[in-house]
Amino acid sequence: RNLIIMNVEFINPFLSSLMNVLETMAMTKLKPGKPAIKKEQVSRGDVSGLIGMASPQTKGSLSVTFDEELALTIMERMLGERPNSINEEVTDMVGEITNMVTGGAKNILGDKGYDFDMATPVIVSGKDHTINHKCEGSTLIVPFTSDNGHAYIEVSFDVLDD
Amino acid sequence: RNLIIMNVEFINPFLSSLMNVLETMAMTKLKPGKPAIKKEQVSRGDVSGLIGMASPQTKGSLSVTFDEELALTIMERMLGERPNSINEEVTDMVGEITNMVTGGAKNILGDKGYDFDMATPVIVSGKDHTINHKCEGSTLIVPFTSDNGHAYIEVSFDVLDD
Repeated sequence: RNLIIMNVEFINPFLSSLMNVLETMAMTKLKPGKPAIKKEQVSRGDVSGLIGMASPQTKGSLSVTFDEELALTIMERMLGERPNSINEEVTDMVGEITNMVTGGAKNILGDKGYDFDMATPVIVSGKDHTINHKCEGSTLIVPFTSDNGHAYIEVSFDVLDD
Repeated sequence: RNLIIMNVEFINPFLSSLMNVLETMAMTKLKPGKPAIKKEQVSRGDVSGLIGMASPQTKGSLSVTFDEELALTIMERMLGERPNSINEEVTDMVGEITNMVTGGAKNILGDKGYDFDMATPVIVSGKDHTINHKCEGSTLIVPFTSDNGHAYIEVSFDVLDD
């Protein structure tokens, strides 16, 4: 039970970072759904940004997953041009978003005493792929809706005692 | 040029770990192709394990990608039963392989003075997905062939001065 409570505390900074980044950089408002502990629920999408987080006391992973339509719309609003499909410019943008979301959350969590270093982001492209975070604790997933498609954020965190 | 040489030094421990893990645990021999700096070359597969690596001096990411046929064959050889498709048992196994490969390389690289902490692995499932590591330096990719399909390993590493 403690682990679950801790995870909710961990996921909120990622949520607010993602909503903030998309609203300020791409005028795109995401409506968050109910956070859930991931068991059966699967985040399925077309492009995902993943990043690892690690320190001697903490390890975890973050993923942000977008429908193609939503990713292309964000791209259009940020750069003024809409690509026809998920190209390298789009995966670069998703990588930037992943870095910004994790960096924003890192600052907030660092203030609470949870320090970690960020790995480099990895982007996955593929129609309808699914993501599975493998950790000792639980994975929290939050679905988002928007006028242009779905997004998901998933965060896994293991905090080691000592 | 220095960065490229460094990356080759970095990728070898991951290569040998992967070949070693699959040979000892699943009697599966992978034949490595030529290491390449990833530009146009894309690793395309059906199930991938990704893991982040981070320390104050170093950050990077590893991915191991398998064709479905190869992943199912490894599963069959390890557990004696062959699933019909990429299910949770298969993604658990790919997560374990990802952890073991990175842990093996971490030991070797630690002896060389490159220390990092490992994040938790994330598994991606989806027919014909592609992977893009986003880092400052280069990404090294090594293709493998086997009697049961292809595999790819990709390693990105940024080493920060000071």
